[in-house]
Amino acid sequence: MGVGGLDAFFNPKSIAVVGVSRHPDKIGRVIYDRLMSNRRQGVLKSEIYPVNPELRELYGNRVFSSLSEINDEVDLVVIALPAPQVPQTILEAGKNGARAAIVVSGGFSEVGNDQLTESLRRAIKLSGMRVLGPNTVGVMDAYTGVNTFFTREVKAFSDGRSAQSFIFPSRGSISIVSQSGALAHYVLDTLGERGAGVRAVACVGNQIDVSIPELLSYFASDALTSVVAVYVEGVSGGRELLNRFLELRRNGKQIVVLKAGRTLVGRRTAYTHTASMVGEWEAHVGAFKQAGAIVVDNVKELADVSLALSLQKPPRGRRLAILTNAGGFSVIASDLAQASGLEVIPLPESSIEKLEWLKSEGRIPSVSVTTNPVDLSGSADSAAFEEAYRVVSESGVFDMHLLMPFHVPPMMDEGVVSRLAGIARISGATVVGCDTGDTEWSVTMRALMVRNGIPAYKDMEDAIRVLTLISDIFTPSRESFPIYEARSSEALEPIPRAHLLELVSEHGIQVAREEVVSTGDEAVEAAERIGYPVVMKISSERIVHKTDVGGVQLGITDRAQVLRAFNKLRGIAEKLGVRECGVVVQETVQGIELILGSKVDETFGPTVTVGIGGVLTEVIRDFVTFVSPVQDDEAEEMLTRLRFSGLLNGFRGYPPVDRKALRKIIVNFSKILVENPSIAQLEINPLMAYGGRIVAVDVRGWRYSL
Amino acid sequence: MGVGGLDAFFNPKSIAVVGVSRHPDKIGRVIYDRLMSNRRQGVLKSEIYPVNPELRELYGNRVFSSLSEINDEVDLVVIALPAPQVPQTILEAGKNGARAAIVVSGGFSEVGNDQLTESLRRAIKLSGMRVLGPNTVGVMDAYTGVNTFFTREVKAFSDGRSAQSFIFPSRGSISIVSQSGALAHYVLDTLGERGAGVRAVACVGNQIDVSIPELLSYFASDALTSVVAVYVEGVSGGRELLNRFLELRRNGKQIVVLKAGRTLVGRRTAYTHTASMVGEWEAHVGAFKQAGAIVVDNVKELADVSLALSLQKPPRGRRLAILTNAGGFSVIASDLAQASGLEVIPLPESSIEKLEWLKSEGRIPSVSVTTNPVDLSGSADSAAFEEAYRVVSESGVFDMHLLMPFHVPPMMDEGVVSRLAGIARISGATVVGCDTGDTEWSVTMRALMVRNGIPAYKDMEDAIRVLTLISDIFTPSRESFPIYEARSSEALEPIPRAHLLELVSEHGIQVAREEVVSTGDEAVEAAERIGYPVVMKISSERIVHKTDVGGVQLGITDRAQVLRAFNKLRGIAEKLGVRECGVVVQETVQGIELILGSKVDETFGPTVTVGIGGVLTEVIRDFVTFVSPVQDDEAEEMLTRLRFSGLLNGFRGYPPVDRKALRKIIVNFSKILVENPSIAQLEINPLMAYGGRIVAVDVRGWRYSL
Repeated sequence: MGVGGLDAFFNPKSIAVVGVSRHPDKIGRVIYDRLMSNRRQGVLKSEIYPVNPELRELYGNRVFSSLSEINDEVDLVVIALPAPQVPQTILEAGKNGARAAIVVSGGFSEVGNDQLTESLRRAIKLSGMRVLGPNTVGVMDAYTGVNTFFTREVKAFSDGRSAQSFIFPSRGSISIVSQSGALAHYVLDTLGERGAGVRAVACVGNQIDVSIPELLSYFASDALTSVVAVYVEGVSGGRELLNRFLELRRNGKQIVVLKAGRTLVGRRTAYTHTASMVGEWEAHVGAFKQAGAIVVDNVKELADVSLALSLQKPPRGRRLAILTNAGGFSVIASDLAQASGLEVIPLPESSIEKLEWLKSEGRIPSVSVTTNPVDLSGSADSAAFEEAYRVVSESGVFDMHLLMPFHVPPMMDEGVVSRLAGIARISGATVVGCDTGDTEWSVTMRALMVRNGIPAYKDMEDAIRVLTLISDIFTPSRESFPIYEARSSEALEPIPRAHLLELVSEHGIQVAREEVVSTGDEAVEAAERIGYPVVMKISSERIVHKTDVGGVQLGITDRAQVLRAFNKLRGIAEKLGVRECGVVVQETVQGIELILGSKVDETFGPTVTVGIGGVLTEVIRDFVTFVSPVQDDEAEEMLTRLRFSGLLNGFRGYPPVDRKALRKIIVNFSKILVENPSIAQLEINPLMAYGGRIVAVDVRGWRYSL
Repeated sequence: MGVGGLDAFFNPKSIAVVGVSRHPDKIGRVIYDRLMSNRRQGVLKSEIYPVNPELRELYGNRVFSSLSEINDEVDLVVIALPAPQVPQTILEAGKNGARAAIVVSGGFSEVGNDQLTESLRRAIKLSGMRVLGPNTVGVMDAYTGVNTFFTREVKAFSDGRSAQSFIFPSRGSISIVSQSGALAHYVLDTLGERGAGVRAVACVGNQIDVSIPELLSYFASDALTSVVAVYVEGVSGGRELLNRFLELRRNGKQIVVLKAGRTLVGRRTAYTHTASMVGEWEAHVGAFKQAGAIVVDNVKELADVSLALSLQKPPRGRRLAILTNAGGFSVIASDLAQASGLEVIPLPESSIEKLEWLKSEGRIPSVSVTTNPVDLSGSADSAAFEEAYRVVSESGVFDMHLLMPFHVPPMMDEGVVSRLAGIARISGATVVGCDTGDTEWSVTMRALMVRNGIPAYKDMEDAIRVLTLISDIFTPSRESFPIYEARSSEALEPIPRAHLLELVSEHGIQVAREEVVSTGDEAVEAAERIGYPVVMKISSERIVHKTDVGGVQLGITDRAQVLRAFNKLRGIAEKLGVRECGVVVQETVQGIELILGSKVDETFGPTVTVGIGGVLTEVIRDFVTFVSPVQDDEAEEMLTRLRFSGLLNGFRGYPPVDRKALRKIIVNFSKILVENPSIAQLEINPLMAYGGRIVAVDVRGWRYSL
C-alpha cells in the first residue's frame, strides 16, 4: 500500500465503473471499454465491474445495479454520473469498503457550484475514502493498465474515414501530475512523438481530496519513476509542495515543472521595490528552483526535458561538443548554444591530431572540419561518424555531446545510431541527438536514438534548449522547508527607522554610519563626527522614492553645504506634507549597488529577494527570490542565478564582492521575517558592496498593524 | 528573361546534365533521373540532354559525348564532374551558347583550392554565362519542375526495408535563398511538415558568380513569390543586399532572414563602448530590420514565419484574441503571449453579452469562459466554435486571432476548420491556428487549416512566437542605401577633443558648457563662469574609462573644491603617465543617460548605434544599430526597438524625453561619418536627455591615421 492509500488508484485489485452507459460515446462507457480492452490484452489484471441500474448486461457481462450488489472487495470506484448523484455514490462506495474513487464528473466549484462541492466534501469525509477529482480525466498507469482517460484513440472525419487521434505512450519512467487534462494530453502526445515512454499520469481536477503534493510523494517512493513532470496552475500550501520536491530529489528523481499564471501580479499591496517586482510567478519559480526542480516555459519543454532526464544524467558543466555531417547545422547549433550560455570550447590539440590522422588514413572524409563543432561533411558514413565520435568522447573535456547525424546525405544510414550509442553509454557525458525532418526515415532515426538511450529531437533549438535547462539544476542540501503559519491581516504600517536599523544590525548586517538630526547645527555636528563627504536625506517612512522627489542630497563636503542641504530637504518634506521631519546625515558609501528584500508571499510565506540595485533596478528587473530562511548554499545559488551576476566579479573600478560575506548577509537577512512574524515586508536598498565591506545604506519595513 | 539572365536557372528551354553516370547513385545521374521523372509527370517542359563521353544510351535515350554534339540551344548546363574538369566544361558550354550553369561539384575554395577557383572564375568570364555555385545543390522550382537537388526521397535501411527520407513541398509562394544546402533541406522539410508550399529554392554555394542579392532581385520581380526566406552566413557588399531587401519590400514581398555567426565578434579594434558592444551580428540584425526584413533566431522560425506571411498579412497591432476548447491551453497561451509582449486585452462588454446570450440559448456550452481567452470547454462542437468566433471577430478590437480547436474532445470534428476559415477570411485580423499532436488526425487538422489560409502550428509557443515576430516588421520609406566606399587602412588615432566638440556642434547637437584649463586658478575662473555645481575631468584622449580611474569628479560646488579636484585629477593623470594634461571644467547636466555611437562596419560601412547609457551600459547592453545616415522614421524605429525604451517616457523624476528632438540628434549624428570618411569611430557618452534639453556631455572619436 502506497502513500496515503494512493496505491488503490494505480494498482487496484478491482475497479467498479459507475455510470456505464449503453451508448458507446458516453464517458463511463468509454472508460469501461478501455479498461476491458486492457484486460483482454493482459495488461490490466484488476477485476472490472460495470454499474448502472438501468442495464442488465454488456458484452455478455453482468452489469450491477449498484455498488452494494458486487460480491467482491472493490478497491477503486470510477464515477461518471451527473454531479448531483456523486456525493451519494461516494457514501455508498465507502460503505462497501472501497478505498479510492475517481470522480470524472464535472459540475462542481469549477462552474460555481460550491454547495454541491461542500456536500461532496462531507461525503468523502464520512466515507473514509481517498478521492481524485472531481472534474478530472483521472489516471493512466502504463504498467498496471489502469486508464480512465476517456480520450478516443480513433475519430471519424465527417466523410466517414477515420484516423488515429491520440496515442497512449509506451512504458517508461516519466510520471506526470497535472492540474489540466488538456495539458496532460498535450504532454503525452509530445512524449509519444519523441518516442518516450511514461510511468503513469494523474490529473488532479478540482483537488477536493488527493492533492498534487500527495501524488508527488507517491511517485517519490515509486521505483519505476525517474522523472516527474508537473503542471500546476494554483498552489495552496506552497511549502508542502516544496517539501515533496525535496523528497523526490532525495530519492533520486528529477522534477520538471510548468507553472501557469506567469503574468499574474501579487494580490497584496507592495510597499517596497522588491515586493512590487516579485509577483506570484517569480516567487513560484524561485521556490521551485530552490527545491531542486527545473522550471520550464512551455509544454514542449516540459516533455523535452522530461525525456532527456529519463534517459540521461544532468551534465556536470556547460562544455558542449557538437558532431554533425552538415556544415550549416554546425554553424547554427554553435550559435544557438553559445547564445544560451553553453560553452562550445575548442577540441584539445591531441584530439585534433587524432582526427587529422583519421583523415590522412581515409577513415573520415578529407574535407572534415576538425574543430568543435566537428563537421564530417555530407560524404561521411556511419563508420566515420563512429571514429570521429570516439575521439571527441575520449578527449574527456566535454560535459555534453550533441550528435546530429543528418540523414539526408546518401552515405548516412541508420546504423550510425547504435555505433554512436555504444560510445555515448561509456562517455560519462550527457548525450542528446538531433535529426531533422518529418519523414518516416527521420522519425525512425529519432526513435532509434531514444531506444538506444539518446534523447532525440527534431529541431536543434529544442535539443539545445534542453541541454541548457538540464545544465542548470540546483541540488538542495536541506531536508525540508519549515511550514509557515499564514497571517490573515492585510493592513500594514511602516516600522520606525530606528527599530529597523537595530533589527538589521542585530543580524550582523553593517549599517552606514548615520545620525538623525532636527536642526541645521545638529546636522553640521553630525557631519563632522561622521566625516565628509556625507549624504543627507529626509527621514520619513512615508516617502518611499526619496530620490525622485529630490529627498537625497549627495556629496556634501562642508558646513555651508550641510546647512543648505538641511533647509532644502526640510522644504521638500514640507511640500509633501511632512512637517518637522528629521534629516538623516549619513556617511558616503561607495560600491556595487544591490538590493535585498523580504516579504510574506501568499503561497510560500516569508521569502527573500536579492537583486541588482541602483537607478535602473526597476528597469532591468534582475532579481532572484527564494523561500526564507535560506542557507549558505542557497544564497550562493541566488547570486549565481542573477542575470547580471558578473557585476559581483568587480565592475568599473570596484573590487570583486566578497561572496562569502554577501552570502552571510543574505542568510541572516532571510531570518528576520521568520523570527518576526509581525513583519510583512522589509528591504535594504541600496546594499552597497565594496569588496568585503557590504553596508546597508537604507532600510525600509512594514508590519501588520494588528 | 529575368534579372541578369537568372531566368535560365528556373525556366530553361533545355537542360544538359554533364556527368550523368551509369551508376544510379552518382550525383549527375540522380539529378538526371529526377529531371526525367518530372518531365514524364508533365511538370517539367524543358528538353533534357544527358552528357557523358563514356555512355551511349540511357533508358533508350541518347547520351551525348559532349555539349557541342547537342543540336539544340542549351539554356542551362548542370555540371556534376570532378572539380578539375569544371572550368573547361564551362568554356565549352559558353561556346555552345548556354546561358547558365549550375556547378554542383565541390573541391574549390571551400577546401582551400584557390587556384582552381581562379581558373573557374576566368572561364566564367570568358564564357559570358551566369553560374550558380560551385559546391551547391542548385535550384528547385516547384512550378517549372527544374530540380537539381540530388537528395534521395527514399532510402533503404540496412535490413532492406526502405522509407521516405525527404519530401519536396508542394507549390506555394515562398522562395528560399540559402548559403547552405543542409539548411535549405531543413527549411523545406519543416515547411512540408506545416503543409506549406514553396515557389522556388536556390542554394548559392561558393557564390563565385550568381550572388544572394541577385537572386533576391530575381524573386522581387517574380509574381509567384510572396515571401523570401534567406539563410546567410557571410555577406560581402552589405548595402547591395539591403537594397535588394528594399526592392523586395517595395514590390510587396516579405523577407525572413536567418543570419549565422551570432557569436562572432567584430574584427576591428574597438575604441568606443558602442564599437566594443556592436559586433558583426548586431550590425547585421539592425541593418536587416532597417531594410524591412524579419530576423529570426533559428531554422524553425525561418519556416514558421515564412508560412505565416505566405498566407496572412502582418498584424496592425499587438492585441490578441485567443479562442479554444481547452482551459489549460488558454492559460498557457495567454501566459506565453503576454510574456512575449502581445496584448491579451479583455473582450468588449458587448461581445461578452453576446456570448452570454449564446450560452443562454444553448448555442455555446454553458460552462464557456466568456473573457479573452475564450474557453468553450471540451463539450463545444464545431457549430459552437463558429458562433463564438463570429462574436470575437466582429468585436473588431483585435489585431490577431489565435484559434486552438483541440481535436481530442469527442465533440470536435474537422468541420470546424472551414467554419472558422470563413470568418477569418473577412475578419481583417491576422489569424493563426494551432492543434497539438502528431497523430494523423492532428496532421490533417493542421493541413486543413493551411489549405484554408490559416497558418497552423503544432505547438502554441511556435504560434505565439510567429505572431510576435510578424507584429514587429519595419516598413522602410527609403528608396535605397547609398553605397559606401570601404577604406582599407586599419590604424586609428584619436581625434582632438576640440575638433570633436566642433563637429558635434556643427551637426546641431548641444554640448555641455565646458572649458579646458591648465592651472587651478583657471579652473576656478571657469567654474565661476559656468556656474556651480560643476564636473571636473581629465582631458586626455588616451584615458577611455575615466570614471574607472577616478578621473571624473562630480558635484563640485565651490572654489576650494575646484582646487582640490584639480590637484587630484592631475595626480591621477600623472600616475597613468599623462603629464601636464589639461582639466575640463564642465557644467553639471542631469537627465536620462543615453549613448550614441557611430563606426565603420566591415560589411555595411558607417553605422549608428543608440543605447541606454550610464554605469550599467555594458551590463544591460541595450543597443540598436542601423546603417548611416538614418532618416527620421528610422531614428524613431531605433528608439522603439530599445528593450528599455520605456525609460524615454520619463523615469525617476525626469520628464519624458522629447523624441522629436532626440530623433533629430540621431539623424544628424549619423551623417558625421558619412560626410567625414576619415573618421572611423565616434561616440557621445553620455548623451543626457532631460525633456527637450539633450546634451552631449562627452565625445570621443578615432580617425584613420593615414
